[in-house]
This record gives sequence, C-alpha cells and structure tokens, in this order.
Amino acid sequence: MRHRIALDAMGGDGAPLVPVQGAAEALREWPDAVEILLVGQPEALESLLEAEDVSGLRIIPASETVEMNEPPALAIRRKRDSSIAVGLGLVRSGEADAFISAGSTGAVMAGSLLFLRPLPGVERPPVGTIFPTSSGQTLVLDAGANVNCRPGHLQQFAHLGSVYMRDIVDIERPRVGLLNLGTEPGKGDELRVTAYRLLREDSGLNFVGNIEGDQIIRGACDVLVCDGFVGNVLLKFYESMAGFVTGVLGQAERPLTSGGLDEIFRFLDYAEYGGAPLLGVNGVSIICHGGSPPRAIRNAIGVAMRCVRFHMVSDMAAALALLAGTVTDA
Amino acid sequence: MRHRIALDAMGGDGAPLVPVQGAAEALREWPDAVEILLVGQPEALESLLEAEDVSGLRIIPASETVEMNEPPALAIRRKRDSSIAVGLGLVRSGEADAFISAGSTGAVMAGSLLFLRPLPGVERPPVGTIFPTSSGQTLVLDAGANVNCRPGHLQQFAHLGSVYMRDIVDIERPRVGLLNLGTEPGKGDELRVTAYRLLREDSGLNFVGNIEGDQIIRGACDVLVCDGFVGNVLLKFYESMAGFVTGVLGQAERPLTSGGLDEIFRFLDYAEYGGAPLLGVNGVSIICHGGSPPRAIRNAIGVAMRCVRFHMVSDMAAALALLAGTVTDA
Repeated sequence: MRHRIALDAMGGDGAPLVPVQGAAEALREWPDAVEILLVGQPEALESLLEAEDVSGLRIIPASETVEMNEPPALAIRRKRDSSIAVGLGLVRSGEADAFISAGSTGAVMAGSLLFLRPLPGVERPPVGTIFPTSSGQTLVLDAGANVNCRPGHLQQFAHLGSVYMRDIVDIERPRVGLLNLGTEPGKGDELRVTAYRLLREDSGLNFVGNIEGDQIIRGACDVLVCDGFVGNVLLKFYESMAGFVTGVLGQAERPLTSGGLDEIFRFLDYAEYGGAPLLGVNGVSIICHGGSPPRAIRNAIGVAMRCVRFHMVSDMAAALALLAGTVTDA
Repeated sequence: MRHRIALDAMGGDGAPLVPVQGAAEALREWPDAVEILLVGQPEALESLLEAEDVSGLRIIPASETVEMNEPPALAIRRKRDSSIAVGLGLVRSGEADAFISAGSTGAVMAGSLLFLRPLPGVERPPVGTIFPTSSGQTLVLDAGANVNCRPGHLQQFAHLGSVYMRDIVDIERPRVGLLNLGTEPGKGDELRVTAYRLLREDSGLNFVGNIEGDQIIRGACDVLVCDGFVGNVLLKFYESMAGFVTGVLGQAERPLTSGGLDEIFRFLDYAEYGGAPLLGVNGVSIICHGGSPPRAIRNAIGVAMRCVRFHMVSDMAAALALLAGTVTDA
C-alpha cells in the first residue's frame, strides 16, 4: 500500500518550486511506496508539474498561505483554507497519513495541536531534531516548541524520543540522556535535578544519566532531552557550524579535495536529515526549514514514510498510556 | 613595571609540569613584563624549574591541593594552605596582580568569591569565555557559574562583558546581544523578555538585540549574555567540535595539508584563547581547563597581563557603580 503524504506546496523560501521538486525526487526514488498530495494553489502548481515527469502526484486545492511574519496561532485559526490547515485536515480525516511543511514553524505547530490534538498523556508536544554525531545520530528534543518545561514534560519527551529512535532509526533500546552542566545527579537547576530523578526511576526508559555539552557529538546517548530554549539555541548553533567550517577551510587558501568537504557536509548539513517531527500529536507532522532544498523535502518524505510504516503514532500513544498508568499508580 | 601573576602550580591534569612549562613560555615571550609566582609544593616544583632556563619565577609555598572531586566550597574553606587559597590570598593582599588556575573550576570560583569578594553592584560574578567567530571573537557570559539568573544579572553581565571586550580585546563600543530563540523583542521566556527590556533601556550599553544560535558564529555581537546553563552547554558543545571536525576530515581518508587543519584548530581550539576570566570580583581571576597544555597557560598569562595593564577591575567597578546609580534613580 502506498503511503499518502500531504505536502505543503506553499511553504518555505523556495515554494512552490522546491516542494514540487522534492516531491518529484521522492516519487522517482520510491515510485510504488508513496503518493504525494500537493496542497496549494492549483494554478501555481499545475505548470510546475508539467516539467516533472512523474506520476503519483495529486493537487489538493488550498487558496490561502500563512506568511512567515503572521502571528502563527491567529493565522491558523483565521485562514482555514491555508495550505497548512488543509494539509493537516487531510491527516485528521484520514485522507493522508502524514503532513510535511517548510512553512511557518509556529503555524505548523499551532495547526498540529489544533487539528491533530496531543496524544493522551502528552502535555507539551516537542519538536525532535536529529544531531549527527561521530558515531551516528542523536535525537534532541525539545528543539524549540516549549520554552518553559516542567520535569514531567522532559520525562514525556524521553518516551516520545525513545519510540521515535526505535521505530524510525531502528535502535532497539535507545539510550536516554538529560542535557546538563555536569554528570553528577545533583547538577543543574531544580528542573534538571527533579527530571533526573523521574528519568532514573522510570523503568520504561533506558536512562544513561546527565549528558554534558561536549558529550553530544561523541554520541553519548540516542535521545537527549532538554527544554526548548537550550535545544533551540544548540540546534541553530550546530547548523551554523557547517558554513563556519567551510569558511575556515576556505581561509586556509588550500583547495580541499571535494571528498573532505562532502564528508563534512554530509555530517553537518541538516538537509541530509530531512525535517524535524513534531512528536506527541495524534498524526505525523514534520516541519522542514524554510530554506530547505528539494533534497531535504525528499528526505522528509522518506522519514514520514517510515513514521507511517512503523506505526510511530500508535506506539507513542501506547508508551504514554503506560507512563500515565505508572504515574497514577505512584 | 612587571606584572606579578600568581599561578596555581598544582591545578590541572598535567600539574605541576604543565603550569611550570606554561610559565616558562610566558617568561621567554615577555621577559621584562611579567613575574610569575608559582604557588605549590616547593619540593615538587624545584626540580622542574631546574629544567627551565628562565628567570622571573618565584615559588610561593602551599602545602595542600584541592582535588577535582572535592565539594568546592567546603574544600576552599577547609584547605587554607591550598594552592588556590594561597594564590587568591596573594591577589587580595596586593602581593600579586592576578591569579590563574587550571584546577577545580568550582573551587576557583568559590575561592574568588570568598577571598576577592564581588564588586559592589555585582550579585553573581559570571565566567566569561571567548568564542572564536568567523569575523573575530565573541565573549559569552555566563558560561556556567550561575544556573539560575534573574534579568538584572544578565544586565550586570552585559556591563562586565563590555568592559572586558573594551579593555582586553580593544573593541571600542562592544555590541551586546541577548541569546534567545528568535530576534523579535517578545521572544523567549520571562527572563529573556524582561532582560531584553532592561538591556534596551540601558544607555550605558551598545545593545543590538536578540541573537539566535546560528548568529553566534557569524559574529553578530561582541558580548553575548545568557544564563549559565545554556552558556555552559554551548561552550562545551563548541569545544567538542574541534575534535569532531578533525575526525570527520580523518574519515574522508584523504590527508589534509597541515595548513587546513592548523587553521581549524586555531579557530576551534580553546588553548589558543587562554582561560576564562571570572568577572565582577575584586581582582583578576582566570580559570583554565583542567586539560590545558602549556600554551594555554602561557596565553592565560598574556590575558591576565592585559587585565592588569588596562585596569579592567577598576573599569568594571566604575561601570557597575554607574549602573547602580541608574537603578537607584529609576
């Protein structure tokens, strides 16, 4: 059965061209496994589609677009025929299996909460992002959806992240770490101290303790939980390293073999990792960078397909139901 | 006049050899400008000094050493003859102009607060660290001394950092940024929103607004203020990038010209930047990494000399007195 992926054709700096190209790349790569529902203005999309020689694309009309500078929550409530609202509506009604957008992050989050709703037991759906590490990859969450977190939120993030890394990245028993400024249990502020206790006592998690900033790149854990403030700062800082390192190498005024540069880019370029999932809502919703190239969109489609195929959402619902049960018993 | 730098000869992974070597490097570099007071156990130091053909070194006996795993505040109070306590005592009594240690960070901080005392108007002395950027360097503070910060603390950090960058790095009107997850004034939690207002209204600062994680490396500001939790995570993450990038280049299995690698190291290796000053105490106190090589110690001595020569501490006292005046008037 083909997975049906709703793609916001109007979101991102290069829309609608880039989403169309990314969709075409995905269809060429997985022709029998995916169907793309391009959500946007038909007149803008039809001419672009003529240039792409692929089948498996359908246009779903949406007359409005949420702009990047609009207040997200307000925009999503007012523009009911926006590509984001229509796309998420397709997931809610079961007409699509997943939604992907490179548009306004805030609007996709607000829309996902409004249309898909959080899973029972999830108070603050986090955004998860993959950090490439020297030994593989680490899911960092929350990456910016929730600035203020309570200890219980971090515990929920840990469960959501563990399911993601098991279902999508195929890690059987993901190691969960708590981002902190020391490794000892008493380190950090009240949030960290209490979260440490909750995580350690949670037998449903493979908790490996506090993780310091310099252990992330070394791959010290598979799931790293933190509040959305530090997660967001860290993510953006990391992404900016790719350009910085290239600049430094350029300044050396010695041409590098493209092999070396490619290698750095493969590790540091977010495009390779294809979007950040909003976790803990009742449906698959993936947020891409506004500056995503077609390749990032294609990769996000690949991630969405895995989320659907491996039943990520129902696995998360089960994990959270178990956690809620545990908490009630305590 | 020679500046007299008290150096903890017992602190750091390579003590006492590394501090002695770093001191010797500094004395060879600046023979007429610096005198080093090596604080530690004379019997351990004398034999090492014989190997170094330099003058301008004096041993100041200290019989005890604070171990890395000791509770810092307790250790500093109990071990009054530790190299850290004795070295800071020299600064307090005026026998030395600055103190440098690669020993227990916590003990140096606790000792600096106890022996040197915070300057009037400074509630929480922060640790400042230099981040190399694509266009120069940015002082990030606090880098870990204070996990919980109030908005007024960030404003004090901004003043201390501005004086540091003016006196030590020679930037006439340092641009101050507030680390945040968006550029708009209303972004972030209550701490960030209120700090933004305080910084914007402070005519004694050159405030350039909110700075996101990806703007740091681009050199968007000269002084970046943040709470010690995010600062610490970011600093350690950044430092770990040097090894990561080298590893990535190594995996490419194409030998790089040493020029390229050297260039990366020069930008990414903290050793080049020589220690992190604890700012806002009544004296110069510089904290080096436990793993510092002699070159890092030498560079820290260079930084300490600038702090003394340009009267950093009295400039900070003046800036904070002015701030306190402003606050009283308001």
